[in-house]
Amino acid sequence: MKLLAIPLLALVCLTSFAQSPDENTVKLLFDEALAKGESYQMLEHLSTKIGPRLSGSPGAAAAVEWSRHVMQGYEFDSVWLQPVMVPHWVRGQKEEGRIVNSKKMGTVPVNICALGGSIGTGPSGVAAGIIEVQNFEELKQLGAAKIKGKMVFFNRPMDPTKINTFAAYVGAVNQRGSGASEAARYGAVAVVVRSMGSNIEDYPHTGGMQYTPNVPQIPAVAISTKHADLLSKLLKDDAQMQFYIETHCETLPDAPSFNVIGEIKGGEYSNEIIVVSGHLDSWDLAQGAHDDGAGCVQAIEVLRLIKATGYKPKRTIRAVMYMNEENGLRGGLKYAELAEKNNEKHIAAIESDRGGFTPRGFSMTASDAEKEKIRSWKPLLEPYGLSDFGQEGGGADIGPLARLNVALIGFLPDSQRYFDYHHTPQDTFDKVNKRELEMGAGSMAALVYLLDKYGLK
Amino acid sequence: MKLLAIPLLALVCLTSFAQSPDENTVKLLFDEALAKGESYQMLEHLSTKIGPRLSGSPGAAAAVEWSRHVMQGYEFDSVWLQPVMVPHWVRGQKEEGRIVNSKKMGTVPVNICALGGSIGTGPSGVAAGIIEVQNFEELKQLGAAKIKGKMVFFNRPMDPTKINTFAAYVGAVNQRGSGASEAARYGAVAVVVRSMGSNIEDYPHTGGMQYTPNVPQIPAVAISTKHADLLSKLLKDDAQMQFYIETHCETLPDAPSFNVIGEIKGGEYSNEIIVVSGHLDSWDLAQGAHDDGAGCVQAIEVLRLIKATGYKPKRTIRAVMYMNEENGLRGGLKYAELAEKNNEKHIAAIESDRGGFTPRGFSMTASDAEKEKIRSWKPLLEPYGLSDFGQEGGGADIGPLARLNVALIGFLPDSQRYFDYHHTPQDTFDKVNKRELEMGAGSMAALVYLLDKYGLK
Repeated sequence: MKLLAIPLLALVCLTSFAQSPDENTVKLLFDEALAKGESYQMLEHLSTKIGPRLSGSPGAAAAVEWSRHVMQGYEFDSVWLQPVMVPHWVRGQKEEGRIVNSKKMGTVPVNICALGGSIGTGPSGVAAGIIEVQNFEELKQLGAAKIKGKMVFFNRPMDPTKINTFAAYVGAVNQRGSGASEAARYGAVAVVVRSMGSNIEDYPHTGGMQYTPNVPQIPAVAISTKHADLLSKLLKDDAQMQFYIETHCETLPDAPSFNVIGEIKGGEYSNEIIVVSGHLDSWDLAQGAHDDGAGCVQAIEVLRLIKATGYKPKRTIRAVMYMNEENGLRGGLKYAELAEKNNEKHIAAIESDRGGFTPRGFSMTASDAEKEKIRSWKPLLEPYGLSDFGQEGGGADIGPLARLNVALIGFLPDSQRYFDYHHTPQDTFDKVNKRELEMGAGSMAALVYLLDKYGLK
Repeated sequence: MKLLAIPLLALVCLTSFAQSPDENTVKLLFDEALAKGESYQMLEHLSTKIGPRLSGSPGAAAAVEWSRHVMQGYEFDSVWLQPVMVPHWVRGQKEEGRIVNSKKMGTVPVNICALGGSIGTGPSGVAAGIIEVQNFEELKQLGAAKIKGKMVFFNRPMDPTKINTFAAYVGAVNQRGSGASEAARYGAVAVVVRSMGSNIEDYPHTGGMQYTPNVPQIPAVAISTKHADLLSKLLKDDAQMQFYIETHCETLPDAPSFNVIGEIKGGEYSNEIIVVSGHLDSWDLAQGAHDDGAGCVQAIEVLRLIKATGYKPKRTIRAVMYMNEENGLRGGLKYAELAEKNNEKHIAAIESDRGGFTPRGFSMTASDAEKEKIRSWKPLLEPYGLSDFGQEGGGADIGPLARLNVALIGFLPDSQRYFDYHHTPQDTFDKVNKRELEMGAGSMAALVYLLDKYGLK
């Protein structure tokens, strides 16, 4: 692309004729986000100075203090911490995996990591034969006769033909979440799960797993997609091959932590609350820049944008940074519990937890009338690339508010790159594009403005 | 984002009920692009094994041979080279810029690069006072009295509030294209132009510039946006400051080169041609991965997808890799000249020259009826994220086909990241996301299929 192709001249004017008061305010919010935005520098600090912040870790505590401090610095009307007890899982220092005595390549080290919530193998590790399956149905067909005493290798990939990568994720993630207990029912000694990644990569993806009550707990690890392919290849006509893993993860007693909340008090309807939110905790392998540092700084930025543009909300606008989305959801549960107990009236809650990518739209879990009203604002938002208002869904942390009849809204950025970084050492600040992050903040600020001005009734 | 939030389950089915024959074929093309695509590995070779390929360079010659070879390997019905003479500008080895004797910081080296087409300063360089302007109007107001004997520093940034970064580019790029001649009219000795970048960066952006006939030719360089800000700051109340540049670029005699063309012969209407295209040349500072390696491999991939899915086109489908888009457009001009001379009937030409990012839509320069027909296919393309069909425009290389009444279509990927890489050392293969690149190839294949099946009349 070189100089100016003449037809491009037509574009110069594209964003310059915002006219109605609503168009004007939406443009003011985006202009501030893009020309004087502060989300990117906030994210740089959270990602590179604080870094990993799994629930219960020193990083999580530092992130709580930092976000409180930042919101106080912006002089929001109130900033407070909401105590919550959280699970405290730690990875331990050493993780090793290897293919042992394969016919074709002998012993080969492979890249694995423990799944969050797993028990560790301890220093003696686990060595066993390994059997590949694609799904729980196959597991059941093999049964205890084939599985007992072995490791199970869950190798179903995310479907690359799904345009929405979250759909591909949902189609594969039960292996990670429940694979260990499913395999343990048939006497497996450990599970090795293909990483939830869109591509073939060197690094494993961690993520949460749960043990089913009354089923023996066995260690669970993720293996990089590249090594999953290698393992699968070597397993063909080599049924005797062994696999070895060693992990030192463990679950400590629950730890005290906090949701962090800031708000701008509304005018006329100050008892009605609109939430914009992300989660402060992140997996331990990286900086949690996209997951979900982006959502946190965007939530703070939305309130800053409202103040900076001089808009006086009628309703109370609240930025919430939940703790413990990744391995327990305790923050989201606590927030809803207290909202109910304190008789707070939430009209809508927005969550940004799909990365700091270019905005595409909003998903909704709400009444038909509420959805209709939100969709009626599409002409105001479409000039900013927001055109997808057709998906169902909100977000994990705001989910518990559903029982209080709150309209739940998920921010939908472009999904193509998310699962390259998600839960891996690659989820670092340099993977976030400044303009894309800022566009997300602008999008949510615009929606908050419309929710505030028109309500949802 | 953790485990499966339950509302996500709804998404699993989203792409699985393609039903009509058109929906089916579009899905087949995308499935092949995403699950068995070859565009990414092609781009890896072009970017990392061949690399920079400015017109007339050994890299350009290697890229011609490589792309011919690749298309022959895919056994397209015909593959050929179309000779064209191209400008041959070379940068030379050394480029230096510095702020000299500033009050506050003394002498400071800054990051500059010659603009393509510029004359060099030669070994003695140019040192002079420097005066900042934002636009040509300001230049005129200062006039020869203030400008004669000085360098002019054009420092108008790309407007960050424009959502479409190409609009911001068009709003700033005349400084780069015509700044030297405009300043030379008033006796300037050189120009320093703020880089065409969306953000504050360390590296300068090169790009084409032209001299106006009968105006003295003076050297022109780009300065990184970070150093443009520094220079501007130091220039405040320091009118005596000097600036120094040294460049060794020069324009050699025109060199022989080629457009590279491959085609699949049509059935029923084989005399009607549909072009899908990119440009093979790239600036010399980097690998030209987004600009425009992406467009080239996508064009080849479109033909490969058509063959791989077994679709038999009625019309002739042609992949064209133009030479010399960046500094002359000779390839595009030659292609149109020969199309006219040979009485070829082109019905549509698509160009991909905005990077290998997530697809958003297509721009069009076509008759109202043709636009209407293309827009009628939106329901088939929207499930793949293609929703923007409202912009005017085609592409630089296909522009010369306009006089033959060919419908011109520009592929529109997301624009937020493009000007971080464009014409800089940062335009490398690692900046391209596999799925985003593949989605672009799928998008153009789908459009080619519809153009082929239904025509534009």
